[in-house]
Amino acid sequence: MTEANRRQTVLSGMRPTGRLHLGHYHGVLKNWARLQSEYDCFFFVADWHALTTDYGDAEQLSEHVIDMAIDWLATGIDPQAATLFVQSQVREHAELHLLLSMTTPLSWLERVPSYKEQREKLAGKSLDTYGFLGYPLLQAADILVYGAEFVPVGADQVAHVELTREVARRFNHLHGRKVLAEPQALLTRFAKMPGLDGQKMSKSYHNAIELREAPEQVEKKIRTMPTDPARVRRSDPGDPGKCPAWQFHEVYSSEQTRQWARQGCVSAGIGCVECKRPLIDAVLEELEPIRKAASVYEEDPGAVRAILWAGAERARESAEATMQQARDAMGLSRWQSESPAPMR
Amino acid sequence: MTEANRRQTVLSGMRPTGRLHLGHYHGVLKNWARLQSEYDCFFFVADWHALTTDYGDAEQLSEHVIDMAIDWLATGIDPQAATLFVQSQVREHAELHLLLSMTTPLSWLERVPSYKEQREKLAGKSLDTYGFLGYPLLQAADILVYGAEFVPVGADQVAHVELTREVARRFNHLHGRKVLAEPQALLTRFAKMPGLDGQKMSKSYHNAIELREAPEQVEKKIRTMPTDPARVRRSDPGDPGKCPAWQFHEVYSSEQTRQWARQGCVSAGIGCVECKRPLIDAVLEELEPIRKAASVYEEDPGAVRAILWAGAERARESAEATMQQARDAMGLSRWQSESPAPMR
Repeated sequence: MTEANRRQTVLSGMRPTGRLHLGHYHGVLKNWARLQSEYDCFFFVADWHALTTDYGDAEQLSEHVIDMAIDWLATGIDPQAATLFVQSQVREHAELHLLLSMTTPLSWLERVPSYKEQREKLAGKSLDTYGFLGYPLLQAADILVYGAEFVPVGADQVAHVELTREVARRFNHLHGRKVLAEPQALLTRFAKMPGLDGQKMSKSYHNAIELREAPEQVEKKIRTMPTDPARVRRSDPGDPGKCPAWQFHEVYSSEQTRQWARQGCVSAGIGCVECKRPLIDAVLEELEPIRKAASVYEEDPGAVRAILWAGAERARESAEATMQQARDAMGLSRWQSESPAPMR
Repeated sequence: MTEANRRQTVLSGMRPTGRLHLGHYHGVLKNWARLQSEYDCFFFVADWHALTTDYGDAEQLSEHVIDMAIDWLATGIDPQAATLFVQSQVREHAELHLLLSMTTPLSWLERVPSYKEQREKLAGKSLDTYGFLGYPLLQAADILVYGAEFVPVGADQVAHVELTREVARRFNHLHGRKVLAEPQALLTRFAKMPGLDGQKMSKSYHNAIELREAPEQVEKKIRTMPTDPARVRRSDPGDPGKCPAWQFHEVYSSEQTRQWARQGCVSAGIGCVECKRPLIDAVLEELEPIRKAASVYEEDPGAVRAILWAGAERARESAEATMQQARDAMGLSRWQSESPAPMR
């Protein structure tokens, strides 16, 4: 492939936290599905990253990895179009992380905005570990090892991409050649999927609808989700601005349906159960093909494993190319140069 | 091999800092040569460690690696008896380092005695890097990845072995099984080789005799090394306690020769040049076979590379066995368990 028609590289990853929900679908996966047709995409299950905050609870990790991969595949992330893999299968991430650690000032890591935030948020866990401090550097290695040009991030993660750029610049400067490419943040206005209670949808808030949730369960969850708390009786008019169900309308309903719902609410013309009917239908319609596709993979986990294996193989090939240059720039591999033995 | 006749494992490494001198020979290599006949020894060139303090000066690294390996081989470190390899060729060290980082408190690393010492000693360099803080953890990974039972160390390094034991204990405790073996310090009273000026022999003090130094050069260095500064004239009696050459006698001379030298010095019976003659002879005799053996490897660097390649292969095999258990304990590899594909 010539440089001219080479597609640019995008890298993105997700920590394996269990089955995915509508928040992941609207916030990330639909975006990935778009990106994979335009870019050379590397999407990875960030299992090492999961260990930076959950190192005492690794029992479920295995299940989470497969579940996440199934949800990716079921929502149309295509292993032919993108490279899907598990981070820990590509040891080059760990190697580059180590090499970068030699030239990365501690202060750069200590000032990452999310470092202190996360420590406060997860105050119950003991996060004063070397690995937790270094996780933005592991992210940098994740990105740089593929020479990724773009990293889709929300506004709160731009600082991480900026750190990655600094790390790359410093490496290139100290070793006198351009080995590591500086990535750009691909700023994405992630669709914010509301949860059942009106907060952001999140597993930890217990306000989520999972992608593979049974239809009856989905229906029940929406039917019983809170609405405007001031609308106590059917005859009370409601205020969509205070109603979590209205936020679902904003995601799922046509202009016409929204009109009907708003009108019916403020005039007490329809009840909340009635108002939710089109939402239930829309979510069920959205989830049906996903659940169907997922069930095929659930019955054949070997196929999922094979996809992840093949992805790791492809990822390693790309990562190894960068590592050969990085090792050479640091002087680590030159003594081997006349050796007939192949690089591992 | 059954557990009963399995030899215990010893691990030791050296940073590649250039050609070795008599201090390395008497202080480390003669000990290694003994150990290799009793233990299953892994001796490695710590090139990643060199980067923790010399990351801006990697140009010479390549030369240093080969030079160090030649000096090992020339002094009788036997690639049939021990496993000789270069650290960066066994990526499992980096992987285990990363895994251990997740469970190692920052405070454990900050309190390593050598951390602050080294920072002060090398104050000219900017060592406030993530990698410099983590180098004792990389050492821990070096040791634990081979399940080494013993690590030959001087008294000043016992703290590092203790840290390694703590890291292993914590890992085993958190993951509920004994994956990592706690190593023991193999306390060695390292023979302290005096330098030409009476201080400890060290490259940075410019008081060293290299193992491959030309005989004329060796002779000249000893002939011109300082003696008791109070013995200005041939007729002044000297004090061996204040004479660097006397320290050489303590290393190289028989009881009889020492008697002669001491007597001749305090009585002004012999001159300093005369006193040094047996030292010159002894050092030249010691170095001749080393220089000869080294010259064979110098002419065939391909053989040296092949030895290091084969050693890395053997080291990886051993390291991989530990890593499979560590990955499994952390839950990283279980999703692959039914996969027919081989581990990389």
